[in-house]
Amino acid sequence: MRLSPAITELIRALRILPGVGPKSAQRMAFQILERQREGGAELAHALTTAIEKVGHCEVCRTLTEQSVCELCADEQRRDSGLLCIVETPADVLAIEQTGQFQGCYFVLMGHLSPLDGIGPDAIGLDKLAERLASEAITEIILATNPTIEGEATAHYIAEIARQQGIATSRIAHGVPVGGELEYVDQATLGHAFSGRKRVELD
Amino acid sequence: MRLSPAITELIRALRILPGVGPKSAQRMAFQILERQREGGAELAHALTTAIEKVGHCEVCRTLTEQSVCELCADEQRRDSGLLCIVETPADVLAIEQTGQFQGCYFVLMGHLSPLDGIGPDAIGLDKLAERLASEAITEIILATNPTIEGEATAHYIAEIARQQGIATSRIAHGVPVGGELEYVDQATLGHAFSGRKRVELD
Repeated sequence: MRLSPAITELIRALRILPGVGPKSAQRMAFQILERQREGGAELAHALTTAIEKVGHCEVCRTLTEQSVCELCADEQRRDSGLLCIVETPADVLAIEQTGQFQGCYFVLMGHLSPLDGIGPDAIGLDKLAERLASEAITEIILATNPTIEGEATAHYIAEIARQQGIATSRIAHGVPVGGELEYVDQATLGHAFSGRKRVELD
Repeated sequence: MRLSPAITELIRALRILPGVGPKSAQRMAFQILERQREGGAELAHALTTAIEKVGHCEVCRTLTEQSVCELCADEQRRDSGLLCIVETPADVLAIEQTGQFQGCYFVLMGHLSPLDGIGPDAIGLDKLAERLASEAITEIILATNPTIEGEATAHYIAEIARQQGIATSRIAHGVPVGGELEYVDQATLGHAFSGRKRVELD
């Protein structure tokens, strides 16, 4: 049995969503057509609007509708002299939710991956070098992912920063808060030991 | 930090999809805007087209672009005299994939649920009664879900069929093929015993 072409096409199109396989896509398509037509129409509209309007911030490359995003437009943040380097806009959101960082961001929109043809320019490192030369940045905080590519990217950026004489730090890796030692992987536990901090009692 | 309104709206709209919570919706939105803009535009178009074009089959109520669906238009199936009652279009698809049934379908688009105000007319039982009176149907196969509501609906339809003098059967419930007895629930195992078949050796 063939489904009608419009349904087949909808199921195919839904599969671009991350984590959606053939079965989930079919379930989503039927749910929309059976019970969520209004919501489906709103989704179509939201998709069109977002794709049309959302571009990249001229300063930090994150996703935004304005030419300069809210965070980059914040003078207090610019004056802090802190610049945090992350891989994706979702990382910015995660860091903002901690409330621990009051500086600016630079979003790579990926990481160095020479095998996939992603070099320094593809992740905006030319633009980053310009910013480091022109802005009064006192410290760069490398918050790329703790993966092989993320580490390599962090190392590459640390090298650029050193040439400009800017202090650079890497976010701490260790045992997650609330985690149990027993279930932490070896690499993380190794990092937790090498990055240990002396307990200061007064 | 507030995300730009178009992104927030996209994340909200994605949550109508079944099984998509706030985190997945955010991941989907970023993935579309970072890497899948073309796919996102296609999805918006597919949604609009499907919502506009797909309606219900006049004969069996399933989702289709035509006024009468492919299966109902098939004369060989109509001549079989078999009518299978299911709850959703996805059930039709699942049964068609077995290749075991060559008759027609009637899709309830739900089940009886008096507490939610879903009575016989809401699931098209008036239309079903008309079909039973006017068409040459020899057997009704009840394939509603083995839930309380599904069983109640099956029972209700069996009653209508009896008034018209049409033979009615219920699909078999029992141990799933490839399953292990140890992990089968009590109700299913009970069904498997009460529905046992004699082994015929020649």
